[in-house]
Amino acid sequence: MDERLQWISQAARAARRAGWVLGQISGPERRQILLAMADALERPDVRASVLRANAADVAQAELARDRGEIAQALIDRLVLDERKLAGVVDGLRQLASQPDPLGRVSIDRELDDGLGLRRVACPLGVVAVVFEARPDAVVQIAGLAVRSGNAVVLKGGREAANSNAVLVEVLRRALADQGFDPGALVLLEDRADVDALLTLDRDIDLVVARGSSGFVRHVQQASKIPVLAHAEGICHQFLHASADPEMAARVAVDAKCGYPAACNAIETLLWMPGAELALDRCVTQLGQAGVEIRACEATRARHPTLVAAAQTDFGHEFGALVIAVRRVDNLVAALEHIEQHGSRHTESIIAQDETAAAEFLARVDAACVFHNASTRFADGYRFGLGAEVGVSTSKLHARGPVGAEGLITYRWLLRGTGQVAGDYGPGKRRFRHRDR
Amino acid sequence: MDERLQWISQAARAARRAGWVLGQISGPERRQILLAMADALERPDVRASVLRANAADVAQAELARDRGEIAQALIDRLVLDERKLAGVVDGLRQLASQPDPLGRVSIDRELDDGLGLRRVACPLGVVAVVFEARPDAVVQIAGLAVRSGNAVVLKGGREAANSNAVLVEVLRRALADQGFDPGALVLLEDRADVDALLTLDRDIDLVVARGSSGFVRHVQQASKIPVLAHAEGICHQFLHASADPEMAARVAVDAKCGYPAACNAIETLLWMPGAELALDRCVTQLGQAGVEIRACEATRARHPTLVAAAQTDFGHEFGALVIAVRRVDNLVAALEHIEQHGSRHTESIIAQDETAAAEFLARVDAACVFHNASTRFADGYRFGLGAEVGVSTSKLHARGPVGAEGLITYRWLLRGTGQVAGDYGPGKRRFRHRDR
Repeated sequence: MDERLQWISQAARAARRAGWVLGQISGPERRQILLAMADALERPDVRASVLRANAADVAQAELARDRGEIAQALIDRLVLDERKLAGVVDGLRQLASQPDPLGRVSIDRELDDGLGLRRVACPLGVVAVVFEARPDAVVQIAGLAVRSGNAVVLKGGREAANSNAVLVEVLRRALADQGFDPGALVLLEDRADVDALLTLDRDIDLVVARGSSGFVRHVQQASKIPVLAHAEGICHQFLHASADPEMAARVAVDAKCGYPAACNAIETLLWMPGAELALDRCVTQLGQAGVEIRACEATRARHPTLVAAAQTDFGHEFGALVIAVRRVDNLVAALEHIEQHGSRHTESIIAQDETAAAEFLARVDAACVFHNASTRFADGYRFGLGAEVGVSTSKLHARGPVGAEGLITYRWLLRGTGQVAGDYGPGKRRFRHRDR
Repeated sequence: MDERLQWISQAARAARRAGWVLGQISGPERRQILLAMADALERPDVRASVLRANAADVAQAELARDRGEIAQALIDRLVLDERKLAGVVDGLRQLASQPDPLGRVSIDRELDDGLGLRRVACPLGVVAVVFEARPDAVVQIAGLAVRSGNAVVLKGGREAANSNAVLVEVLRRALADQGFDPGALVLLEDRADVDALLTLDRDIDLVVARGSSGFVRHVQQASKIPVLAHAEGICHQFLHASADPEMAARVAVDAKCGYPAACNAIETLLWMPGAELALDRCVTQLGQAGVEIRACEATRARHPTLVAAAQTDFGHEFGALVIAVRRVDNLVAALEHIEQHGSRHTESIIAQDETAAAEFLARVDAACVFHNASTRFADGYRFGLGAEVGVSTSKLHARGPVGAEGLITYRWLLRGTGQVAGDYGPGKRRFRHRDR
């Protein structure tokens, strides 16, 4: 094992020990740490130094963008302004106010006299988070880790190096001020550390990957550790024949333009015969909002000035003010299009017809399925999870926006009085299996 | 895509459609299917044909064993006798009597006026199960699939080909008799099908792997689909100084000898100073039960006739009537030994001292942690889960014995009245986040 790998492994093990204490203290104590973190980030001097560090990162990134090395979308994610900072602080307080996820007993079952089984929630242990830009993720993740009693190893992108370093230092100091080992929060600096990290399956329990789809896919393929992530956010908004035109357009503009680089932004608008007026309003208002619309032939027959969509525009994540528009024959055809092109992230239907909406909600196989609401609501903060670890498009463990629960597992604790399994079975003692 | 792969992909897609219906019908209807399956397996003619098919498989396997091609442990798993058959039928009925896992609303939250979020349990879709021997797994898995509304693709080992074919036919007929598409239950026959199957990440949502650790590791490495499995079951029983000697021995014999090929059998016995009498009883009774005991030097100082253990005997899964015995200095040393050598499956402490037991239960990072009970209780049937998909040593999704819940995921359903995310945030509308 090379020296650097060994150092990371040791840091992860030390983090596990430090984090173990966070899992053992009481819920109110964990809450206190979160509030202390929020308070620290609101101190004017801290806020100023965070914003200063971020401004330096952004300036650097803008030069790189001008050289054509990075995309504007990355800079959008990198910027940490007063508004975003207020959002993450608010998220920490929301987290603090939530019920404690640890120690919950999801099963409490008497197997027999003096043989009691309990399934008890506990932290995963050590969670590694690798991300490209978005320094606000540092705070969210650290908050969720404290809430769930986990240690965390962070590896941010080079672009956010200054922002991340300042933020982690503030959070570590808040931990220490509360009397806890700041070693529960580790920041790795070196790019080469990511691939090393992904091999440490004995030291790290879960990897959360956030960033571009290329980056996430690389992590998923290189990791020996389970990865929680979404590689893509290819979300659709479907205009049913019964859609209210004004609502359809208002929701589409929010879903496309609110934050085009976000994974929960829509990439494709589907419409069916009968939804022409809704389509018209969408085209007008998206156009006014500066969105480039790439349309199928049927759509262009109605709106000839629109650019023709290529087949590859469907199922493509633009991450920018571009949208593909396609006519489908009916609800079933919309479901088929989504099945084929969606990434199982978030799908929405705009419809006044409750039966159609119910069918859409029942049939779409995605983490989030919405009726008459913007796909942009698919977010841990908006769902009331306090903050999100990330959004998972996997079906296992945690799906969709993942909050503290995604960092929790459980253990089965059995307390007996000397029972042996051989005494039970057909023709022998029978289990009682009575839930308490 | 080659022809065979295409065939499997089509069968999996057809299974998804057939299984979708199982997820949509009511809980009582799913219950009815399970009871019909149990009844079918109890019909004397069916039972006879199952046992006949299994006898043929076992006879074949015994020849292979005599040629040194397969291990006795595999034959132990292959045998399906009246007792095991009664066990799985009982398991189907237990499953039928359990609360329905589908449709459960784990979060019902008002985000704002007319904006309601629900997190609703739903089936994964299509589960593939690859296993080596154990034809009883066919019934367990099919039962759990019905209970959880999933389709299932089964690929059993060559050794159990006759048993599996008969069992699947019985279960498919039961499905059809109840008016459902038997295509929800697919049996693959060819060995080469496994690797093909593992590439179909669009068609299959979860792979459950059961078999030898070499087989499971192969599946884990080859699969593009998430795998639920345990590669190893390296379980320890620790004799604390306060252990009751008689209880210690009784539990150890059950945990080692009840079914040595099982993953929840113990492989190592740890003891600390003060537990000498418990050790003595264990050595005597394990010896009488025919167990080969491989002991550390400190243990041999007390029991000189025991074989000396090699370092590699610790952390080794014997899967047979062999056990390693080691003295550790104290509880902490036992925890360290388990941390280093255990497979996070099941660990137990025998102790009258409640404080020591509590510390063991709090500190051991394993799916199951037991006090004064045999590790053999770590089993879905014994835990009251009806049957088990398998035992998972992963910390994510489902941990330990996995029942129907392991085949369930959830979707976030949001119903709005035209809300957009841009209206909410600091300085704007605030979410209500009121749970109902």
